[in-house]
Amino acid sequence: MAKDLTISYLLDFYGQMLTEKQLEVTEFYYNDDLSLAEIAAHCNISRQGVRDSIKRAEAQLLEYEEKLGLAKRFAQMQAGLDEIIKCAQDISIYNDKFYGSSEVEKRTVRICEIASKLND
Amino acid sequence: MAKDLTISYLLDFYGQMLTEKQLEVTEFYYNDDLSLAEIAAHCNISRQGVRDSIKRAEAQLLEYEEKLGLAKRFAQMQAGLDEIIKCAQDISIYNDKFYGSSEVEKRTVRICEIASKLND
Repeated sequence: MAKDLTISYLLDFYGQMLTEKQLEVTEFYYNDDLSLAEIAAHCNISRQGVRDSIKRAEAQLLEYEEKLGLAKRFAQMQAGLDEIIKCAQDISIYNDKFYGSSEVEKRTVRICEIASKLND
Repeated sequence: MAKDLTISYLLDFYGQMLTEKQLEVTEFYYNDDLSLAEIAAHCNISRQGVRDSIKRAEAQLLEYEEKLGLAKRFAQMQAGLDEIIKCAQDISIYNDKFYGSSEVEKRTVRICEIASKLND
């Protein structure tokens, strides 16, 4: 069973739509990197039970994303925010070097602040 | 029955999680501004049936948001992007007035472009 990093990302968005048990097991597997055997021992269910639970959770997470596409929208936001930060840093460098405007500097700092916070 | 604008916003995020019928009825009501009687006639169900369907859909949309909070995260993104645009416009004004740097201008334009696109 290969770990799909997409699932870890989707867990962040849609994890709360899973049952409590599914969420627990899937987080153990994807976020805490436990093995199926470790999860089975911890949750007191069979290894096959763990595997089935994770498989169902994966299918559901993928279905949510297929329907809603919100993780993709966020990923696009993040890529855009990264580029905004880069542009603001470039402006800051030009400003430092040639103009020394505190008003420009204040605003490049603010842009980076906002974009970084939104990108958390 | 008061129309709640929040619902219209949430429909955009979670509408695809509703049943096809619920989605249709709720969109008629919130997005197309049809009356319960008009929807009833169009869908060939009772006025009470329409009302119940909308009420159930509203409850579900609110529950999705309660669990996932993605609409709120997007709203924060949008507010942040608006402020980023404002900062970039201010930089552009200072640059125009005092420095005339094409490199700075190019980047303020790009920041506004990205932020506006993400805010669509």
